[in-house]
Amino acid sequence: MSKPGLARGTRDFGPEIMIKRNFIFEQIRKVYQKFGFLPLETPAIENLSVLMGKYGDEGDQLLFKILNSGDFAKDLTPDDLSLGSKEIFKKISDKGLKYDLTVPFARFVVMNRHSLAFPFKRYQIQPVWRADRPQKGRYREFYQCDADVIGTNSLICEAEIIAMLHEVFSLLKIKNFVIKINNRKILAGITETIGAKGKETDLCVAIDKIDKIGADKVKEELIERGFSDNNIALLQPIFDFSNDSRLNFEKLRNWLQNSQTGLEGVSELETVWDLSSDLNIENLKIEFDPSLARGLSYYTGAIFEVKALDVSIGSISGGGRYDNLTGTFGMPDVSGVGISLGVDRIFDVMEELELFPKELKQTSTKVMVTNFGKETLKTSLKLTSILRENQINAEIYPDASKMKKQFEYADKKGIPFVLIVGPEEIEQSKFQLKNMETGEQNMLDVEHLIKTLNV
Amino acid sequence: MSKPGLARGTRDFGPEIMIKRNFIFEQIRKVYQKFGFLPLETPAIENLSVLMGKYGDEGDQLLFKILNSGDFAKDLTPDDLSLGSKEIFKKISDKGLKYDLTVPFARFVVMNRHSLAFPFKRYQIQPVWRADRPQKGRYREFYQCDADVIGTNSLICEAEIIAMLHEVFSLLKIKNFVIKINNRKILAGITETIGAKGKETDLCVAIDKIDKIGADKVKEELIERGFSDNNIALLQPIFDFSNDSRLNFEKLRNWLQNSQTGLEGVSELETVWDLSSDLNIENLKIEFDPSLARGLSYYTGAIFEVKALDVSIGSISGGGRYDNLTGTFGMPDVSGVGISLGVDRIFDVMEELELFPKELKQTSTKVMVTNFGKETLKTSLKLTSILRENQINAEIYPDASKMKKQFEYADKKGIPFVLIVGPEEIEQSKFQLKNMETGEQNMLDVEHLIKTLNV
Repeated sequence: MSKPGLARGTRDFGPEIMIKRNFIFEQIRKVYQKFGFLPLETPAIENLSVLMGKYGDEGDQLLFKILNSGDFAKDLTPDDLSLGSKEIFKKISDKGLKYDLTVPFARFVVMNRHSLAFPFKRYQIQPVWRADRPQKGRYREFYQCDADVIGTNSLICEAEIIAMLHEVFSLLKIKNFVIKINNRKILAGITETIGAKGKETDLCVAIDKIDKIGADKVKEELIERGFSDNNIALLQPIFDFSNDSRLNFEKLRNWLQNSQTGLEGVSELETVWDLSSDLNIENLKIEFDPSLARGLSYYTGAIFEVKALDVSIGSISGGGRYDNLTGTFGMPDVSGVGISLGVDRIFDVMEELELFPKELKQTSTKVMVTNFGKETLKTSLKLTSILRENQINAEIYPDASKMKKQFEYADKKGIPFVLIVGPEEIEQSKFQLKNMETGEQNMLDVEHLIKTLNV
Repeated sequence: MSKPGLARGTRDFGPEIMIKRNFIFEQIRKVYQKFGFLPLETPAIENLSVLMGKYGDEGDQLLFKILNSGDFAKDLTPDDLSLGSKEIFKKISDKGLKYDLTVPFARFVVMNRHSLAFPFKRYQIQPVWRADRPQKGRYREFYQCDADVIGTNSLICEAEIIAMLHEVFSLLKIKNFVIKINNRKILAGITETIGAKGKETDLCVAIDKIDKIGADKVKEELIERGFSDNNIALLQPIFDFSNDSRLNFEKLRNWLQNSQTGLEGVSELETVWDLSSDLNIENLKIEFDPSLARGLSYYTGAIFEVKALDVSIGSISGGGRYDNLTGTFGMPDVSGVGISLGVDRIFDVMEELELFPKELKQTSTKVMVTNFGKETLKTSLKLTSILRENQINAEIYPDASKMKKQFEYADKKGIPFVLIVGPEEIEQSKFQLKNMETGEQNMLDVEHLIKTLNV
């Protein structure tokens, strides 16, 4: 006998959860389509040659690797064993599970570059896998909902992403959120200006933590990472920004006046602000955040992150612009920008704030037809079939159990109506329809039955 | 630079294919819900302890196994290497990709037995993985669309599955198909009657090929499999069945009169025939097929298989009843019955017979708004936003490219309308709407624009 357990960090989604998750997916899909994004799916399994080296060393470690099929170990020698796991896997595994949707998307674009209409806008809603240590809210298998435009560097795309995010969260009734925005070129401009050119990554990692650990600790970390006191003194403006993004752009222009790249970044952000306002977004919630860096190293322009404000949870969405993503597959100079929505965290936010619509039904069955055995079964089956012909979702209780048991089933499953088909009803050609919520019962002929259930 | 290639036996689904596949999934989902099935999803990754031993030796071989994360090889010794791949994997892999949806479903049921409403009806539409040799129409990663009822042995469920299959294929316009039905108890009755009790599996494997290789070759194979001439002589009735299922049931009753199990099987099938007819299924296409066995060894009652008749393709659906599925996870005596639809083959059938609806659009964008740069951009953005507020799927061309290029994009993507926003149009507050199919162009104010596009 096998012990039935889930693999660590994975989950089942039972009917109740599925119905709520599907509600989220549907709203996201609706908005992505409204903005002209086309659906794409790529396989779960990718060649390791496609995945490795795209997510940094840590990412490579976190890839789930699949054993080659057949006699995978036939070329493995005792000498190989001394090389350690980091080398051995190359001899026995050439495939892995995808780690995100972006790299497979880039692979798809390169492989199909001659048939796609550029700029190519695609959305993709699929699971990804990471061999992370599981913890609350972090899973080894989870869905991402991505939308990307590739083949243009137009900043209209950034503004469209901002509009899209507003529309998704409006449909989901998540009212209190902020879209934090930064630009990689501003980060580059800052390192240049403070005399620490090239130390962009170190700067990012440190200042990304301002919110969590405060300015003083960030400065300590910067010193640990080899920044000089002078570097840090020149960095002061970053700790003095106000809440007014437009005002901060002014300050930046001043601060970064000697960095071409930095000024470009400021100008890009200002354009995104202008275009967003031209798009008439209601109640625009964008905020410039110079400490925003995000881990992924492929961003080259805008960087996005969305935080829900009424709950203490990490970001519920993130993304940005990348100029070199397809370059690693031999198709250089293609710019793209995209966003990824984290459905697990969005789900948690909606649960916590009770945002799921009340009318979201536990079940899609409208009516359960009783089954009292031989004498009445033919009629029960016929009625079930008539209801379905009239596009009413109906199920017949499969066993001739006691009435009580059949009602318990309907109740537990949240079926709104039960149709009682007994000998008396059959004689009268009228049937008892019970409303499970109100308890109301009515004797109805078939015509009125259909009318009542078809609302 | 990485060479961008797909892993063997896997596929990308680009927008055009996705839209067609989603059409199929939607119809299936609609019917499953109409019959009272609830949605379920289980993870791609399962513990090998859950998967191994459920699909026979061949199945165990075909499971994709995932390398343990971290230092997986630290306990691997040179001695282990001599054990061969079939043993080594146990030391370095304890997880795998799911092979079908049924075994994970059984695991889910056992783990959630105290909270589920039984009989539990669920549907599940997810990919599964098999390390099979890829060939035309056979992939290593493919979707299954399953519906199962568990917790009742009522034959109404078999009849409901038959009704459901008719409704799915009717929605998909697949008119010419046959649902072949057999019963495992009849196969057991036959082995008993011919004096080869217990050789049921061998019998199944051989007679399953009647259609492909003919009666004589099947007899040869039976001899190879150790059946005696006497066994085979007694088996003769199976080669003499007619096309009339009801008549064949009569013949079976006679032939298997000394086998209790066999007679039970016949009686079950007759009941399924009766119930199906009570369900008023239009144009009922069921056929008793005593040679139908299907590979999976867990079937204990009814066995189903659906073949599309206008194309030469394998079965497009299969399933059956199983009495012991949850038993292996410590929950005995629970009977279930289910069906699985093969979306890849259904897709191929529909492509070959051109059954996809003509109105299935390549894109969900209704209108593309032009972008002629600075002077007109504000208006283009505003119009795009107004259209979207009115629930019209709209996209703006992101770059201020030449008109020709923008039209080519709309054309390639199959967008039905283009809205031309030039200086002249802005002055008049009327905009050129071009119908891309007819070539017709109209100058419309915003109100009429919305009316025209909102049909």
